[in-house]
Amino acid sequence: MHINKFVIPEIIFGKNALDQAGEACLRLGAKKVLIVSDKGVANAGWLDHVIEICRNSGLPFATFTDITPNPKDTEVIKGCSVFVENECDAIIGVGGGSALDVVKAIAILAANGGKISDYEGIDKIEKPLPPMVMIMTTAGSGSEVSQFSIIVDTERKRKMTIVSKTLVPDIAIIDPYTLVTKDSALTATTGMDVLTHAIEAYVSIAATPLTDVQAKNALALVSNYLRPSVASKTNMEAKEAMAMASLQAGLAFSNAILGAAHAISHAIGGRFLLPHGEINAILLPHIMDFNFIAVPKRFTEIAEMMGIDTRGLTQRDAGNAAIHFVKQLSIDIGIPERLNEVQFSEEDIDLISRTALEDACMITNPRDMDLEQVKTILRNVL
Amino acid sequence: MHINKFVIPEIIFGKNALDQAGEACLRLGAKKVLIVSDKGVANAGWLDHVIEICRNSGLPFATFTDITPNPKDTEVIKGCSVFVENECDAIIGVGGGSALDVVKAIAILAANGGKISDYEGIDKIEKPLPPMVMIMTTAGSGSEVSQFSIIVDTERKRKMTIVSKTLVPDIAIIDPYTLVTKDSALTATTGMDVLTHAIEAYVSIAATPLTDVQAKNALALVSNYLRPSVASKTNMEAKEAMAMASLQAGLAFSNAILGAAHAISHAIGGRFLLPHGEINAILLPHIMDFNFIAVPKRFTEIAEMMGIDTRGLTQRDAGNAAIHFVKQLSIDIGIPERLNEVQFSEEDIDLISRTALEDACMITNPRDMDLEQVKTILRNVL
Repeated sequence: MHINKFVIPEIIFGKNALDQAGEACLRLGAKKVLIVSDKGVANAGWLDHVIEICRNSGLPFATFTDITPNPKDTEVIKGCSVFVENECDAIIGVGGGSALDVVKAIAILAANGGKISDYEGIDKIEKPLPPMVMIMTTAGSGSEVSQFSIIVDTERKRKMTIVSKTLVPDIAIIDPYTLVTKDSALTATTGMDVLTHAIEAYVSIAATPLTDVQAKNALALVSNYLRPSVASKTNMEAKEAMAMASLQAGLAFSNAILGAAHAISHAIGGRFLLPHGEINAILLPHIMDFNFIAVPKRFTEIAEMMGIDTRGLTQRDAGNAAIHFVKQLSIDIGIPERLNEVQFSEEDIDLISRTALEDACMITNPRDMDLEQVKTILRNVL
Repeated sequence: MHINKFVIPEIIFGKNALDQAGEACLRLGAKKVLIVSDKGVANAGWLDHVIEICRNSGLPFATFTDITPNPKDTEVIKGCSVFVENECDAIIGVGGGSALDVVKAIAILAANGGKISDYEGIDKIEKPLPPMVMIMTTAGSGSEVSQFSIIVDTERKRKMTIVSKTLVPDIAIIDPYTLVTKDSALTATTGMDVLTHAIEAYVSIAATPLTDVQAKNALALVSNYLRPSVASKTNMEAKEAMAMASLQAGLAFSNAILGAAHAISHAIGGRFLLPHGEINAILLPHIMDFNFIAVPKRFTEIAEMMGIDTRGLTQRDAGNAAIHFVKQLSIDIGIPERLNEVQFSEEDIDLISRTALEDACMITNPRDMDLEQVKTILRNVL
């Protein structure tokens, strides 16, 4: 039996879509909403904008912004206290993957109690969550539409991957205007995260025709628009294309799940708290090369979506061209080839490799990967 | 401001997906479910199959099958009585567009009271509806994923188009095995309905990148698989492709809405109760020809998705090739070129044309259409 499941939130996409946040919450029956954001997004002015929208909608609110990149279980506990103490009944997230993943984790604890580590893995959440409205301000994580939340376990120094259909938000709001405040480095790394989502979802063993159309479109958009989006904060054509790419890659990977790049990236990021998109970008060509033999035809299709003319090429040549495309894109937008910032010990490599093999994203990687193979890839990116 | 909204149900797609119907209802909190179907589907055995699934899931149920093609307001009232008298709190639809549209209309009346004509038009439904699980047994209407319900007003002899996000079902189940009991004539007409959905959604003024990817994929699948699906009841590759085409066209048109073919088809079908897919198939090439000047580039893309090599063709030539493709497809699968079964009087033509101009689907047609233009098209298909 081969059953495809596909779940996505209601989507509101477009310039000024943000202005519908208040109405969206009221429509879900919210009486008082917790607005969750991070300091970068608050400094850029988007938190104030959402507060004003809630005021204009007559919707009482509390706020929580005590969130760091690679968000922590300790931050989730604090956010949940704010939710409970203020008697909120719905949550708005405003930000990138960090803020939105914290929204989901707060919702889990508020409705189900316990510790966030109780919910690590697939389908561990029992009670229904409060309504969630997600406003995505980076074209990156896809958290606004996905059934994933990634939270750092500060004691175990590792990322927990929590997967459940109930984590799919009720309403996702994607407003390309919010991308104009992102600096070029963040645009580059989050954009490479989108590319990684699209490619891993497309070669996932759980890919379906419904996820394929989204992944392919996202791939074509990133290939054409990530460079100009990094080059200019105000190129709205590029911002809009990257916002759509992020959304479509999110729809794809939320339902097709991901692969080894994300599994290893979570393991590295949990231990060393490096930028998720950058780790993915560095790992991606190595994982593509490793996965090629599992799905050679798919790699020709990936090359074609990148705009490569594959006529007359062997599958291996087309796959190599796709891998080269990813490497050149990273170079063009200033992403390093290796994780130079951190010194990994042999002990780190062993621990990270073992953690990666346990990550939920590894299950859908198209090629089986063993401990030595993970270690080899890690050594290649250090 | 240009905002795209995209709403779809949770989707379960695949061979034997049907077996998940009971679990789907329980997950939505159902205590007792009304199973709505029509006699054709019941005779094919699918109703008994769903009853057995409910029994195995320990889910109490009632049934209602008093539904005819082009379903009527009077049938909705009867179905609602059965829902209320049996104290049901959720509905499963099993069938094609007729049964599923009745499910939605029963849900409207059960939760909101009044007459079904009170809800004609866009966004007239106020109170939330009971959970709905839709099992699609024809690859046609797309009702299992759409925000539409089309019900005949028996007094006014016209179809009412009811559009509301709240009509999007909670869970859509698409099982290609259910298509093997359809006869070739029904496969042909419902398949042409899918093609009409894909083309009208693609040229709609409300089309977005999210609906475009679905419409294009549906178009390619119908172009390749409708003929073999009509030719054989048991060609599972063709059945699976047509099931996916129907689903993707449904996702597209539910969010991009439709156009003049559906507006006129509803007006004809409401008055003369002819098969919806057949009317659409007959109208489609005429509407394509009329709409061409509004979106010439889109017609080249349509031709390409049909597999036509458009290199060296003018936009007009490519558009003509697409129109010819539709006509030839209809001929191949035994659909007539004209509505020969009915004698239209001049009075009928006037009334149908006026009704068509008032249909909600006319709003998103890419080219403005006036009364004389509708009449001209009608005279061409009589």
